[in-house]
This record gives sequence, structure tokens and C-alpha cells, in this order.
Amino acid sequence: MRIVIPLFDRFTALDAVGPYEVLKFLPGAEILFVAAETGAVRDVPRSLALTADATLDDVDSCDVLLVPGGPGARALLEEEHLLGWIRRMHGGSTWTTSVCTGSLLLAAAGLLKGLAATTHWGAVDVLESFGASYTPERVVFQGKIVTAAGVSSGIDMALALAARLADRTTAEAVQLAIEYDPQPPFDAGSPAKAPQAAKDLLARGIR
Amino acid sequence: MRIVIPLFDRFTALDAVGPYEVLKFLPGAEILFVAAETGAVRDVPRSLALTADATLDDVDSCDVLLVPGGPGARALLEEEHLLGWIRRMHGGSTWTTSVCTGSLLLAAAGLLKGLAATTHWGAVDVLESFGASYTPERVVFQGKIVTAAGVSSGIDMALALAARLADRTTAEAVQLAIEYDPQPPFDAGSPAKAPQAAKDLLARGIR
Repeated sequence: MRIVIPLFDRFTALDAVGPYEVLKFLPGAEILFVAAETGAVRDVPRSLALTADATLDDVDSCDVLLVPGGPGARALLEEEHLLGWIRRMHGGSTWTTSVCTGSLLLAAAGLLKGLAATTHWGAVDVLESFGASYTPERVVFQGKIVTAAGVSSGIDMALALAARLADRTTAEAVQLAIEYDPQPPFDAGSPAKAPQAAKDLLARGIR
Repeated sequence: MRIVIPLFDRFTALDAVGPYEVLKFLPGAEILFVAAETGAVRDVPRSLALTADATLDDVDSCDVLLVPGGPGARALLEEEHLLGWIRRMHGGSTWTTSVCTGSLLLAAAGLLKGLAATTHWGAVDVLESFGASYTPERVVFQGKIVTAAGVSSGIDMALALAARLADRTTAEAVQLAIEYDPQPPFDAGSPAKAPQAAKDLLARGIR
């Protein structure tokens, strides 16, 4: 089972690594990070780099496509080389998935027209501009397309996907392996729950 | 504020990347991944590599030390070069932290003797063999030392730490930024909660 994760300049690492840590446990899983060129791919603020071990052009099919998001995603919404590659991968995939603003890339590739989908709460307007219908859920299944909400939601998405790729007991065993028993110290993880002061601070810029 | 994350062969990526995605938002945060040598450092099953941008010897102090775990941690419990470096970093740190079996490295460096601490649920005996007192909590503060439980717990730890490094509103703004509103599809994230079938499968090996 080949799982392919495309990286790009200014991606968000947790979008990719959260699901990676779940899916890597699955029987037969072979995960490949790819990018326009092989080598280190940097995030924002550029202090982290993940290695792409193959180029987009090296890969012509996969069982699971997992597209992360990040600040760099918005710069790629007209990047036809990447969007065409996403369409080709989707053509042969069993599952086509995204985390955070990765769904903007699926949408820009034309895969989400008329479908329910989710994304980071701050990117709803862009998602809908491509004809998708934003659904404020953490994970949205639409046929073989699965979109997840912002950043950390990729872990929840991958566990739900693991149960379908293998079975529920396997997914539960993975959850136990990564001790995913979340206990956030605050309850501010969505716009509906976050205090106004936190929303104001984020809007102004934390740093 | 310099935050240093040491990597080693067969580390667990989410141990490092979960807290990284939280701490990178903090005002003044400069995060540096280090390792014995610069360059790509591989996890298990070797499909992921994070880049170390400096060597251990390049760094002589930090404000926050964050030690991830992983299968490779157990091979380093007598690696005096790394353990001595951890002791030196701890000597000047404001916070010394670990995720998962990263606490075994703090313990092997002699930092946890007589202290309450946590680790991955599967590594309790090793932790206690170094004189620490295992506490089955997700995040354990003991003075300036903070240990977190398995893999995904680093996100919870980093949010708690963010409130101390900055303030509660900042931590909540970060939680909102990464949309950390966890909704695991199953409730199997700890040995006390996981169904017996999942525990049996994990004990046999999922793959």
C-alpha cells in the first residue's frame, strides 16, 4: 500500500507528520514524501525541514494521496504542474485526502466541485471559491475524498482512515501506540470555543 | 528564546513536531533541531527524515530543551556524549522537557532521580530503573522539568508550557491556530481505555 505525501515550500509539518505517525503502523504501508525536487523542504518559520525522497515526476500512482497544507499552499493554487499531478494521483487512488489548507489544493485541482469538504477555519472563503461546500466538521468523507480541518485534525482523520484501510481494532491499536488520549489544557481549539481575547490576539498576530 | 530539539537515529517524528508546531508561534521563539551530525535524521520505518541544522557541539545553551523519544532512545541510554550534553543544556535551561521515551534520556542523564515523571506507557519499567517515580499523567511538571507521556502528548505539554512561557491567552491563540479541538474517532488512547483486542494486537505487532 503506497501512501504518498507531497511537500512544498512553507508547508505545515504537523499536517503531514500527524497522519504519517498513524498510517505508518498499518500493514503493508509504504510512505513516500515527494516534492518538486528531492531534498529538504522548509516550513514557516524555516526552522524545520522534512526530506522529500522522490520528485512528483518519479511517482505515477498511489493508493493513498495525503496533501498537507500550510502558508505555502495559497501560492500554489495556479501551479499547474502540481495540480495536474494531484489530478493524476487522484485518478488512480483508493483514497485522496487532505489536511488543513491542503484541501485548497484539491479544490484548485477541481476535485471538490459540488462536494462537502473542510479546511482550516481561516480558509473557508478560498475553499468555497472553488465550488466546494464548507462543512464545519473535523473530518469529512465524500466518496473516496477525505478532507480534514486545521493542522492537528490530521491525526483524527488518519485514525478514521486507518479503520477503513485495515479495521477498527487495528486503528485502536495505533491510537494506543501513539498514546492519543488528548487532554488539551485549554478549550480554545475552534472559533466557536476560543475566548474572544485569543481570537483577537491571533488576528493581530501572535508574534 | 532559544528552543533546542535534539534528534537521533530512529526518533519518533510526532514527538518533536507536535510541540514544535505549538512553540514556533511564541513571541521570540527560535527553534533549532540538532543532532550528532548535521543533515537528515531518519525515523522508523526510515521513510521520514527531519533535518538537523546544527550539531550538539555547536550549541552550548538554550532556554528550552525538548527531548523527543522513539525506538532509538533506548539505544542511547549509555551514550555519554549525548547524556553529558543533556546535562549541560539542563544546567542553563529555563525548562527541560521530554516527550514519550525522551524521558528515558533525561533519566539516564541523572535528571529525574527521586522525581515524579511520565513516559510512554510501555517504558515505565525503564524509567523507574533510573530512580524516577512514574506518574500516569499526560504531562508532569516537577520544578523546571516537564515530562509528557507517549507521542501525541507533546501537543498537550507544549500548550501548557506556552502558557508559562507567554500567557494563557497566547496559548489559547496557538491552540486555535492549529485547530486543536481533538475528536478521536475511537477511545483507545491509553491502556486503561483500549479494548483488550487492540492491546493484544499491539503486543503481537500490528505490522
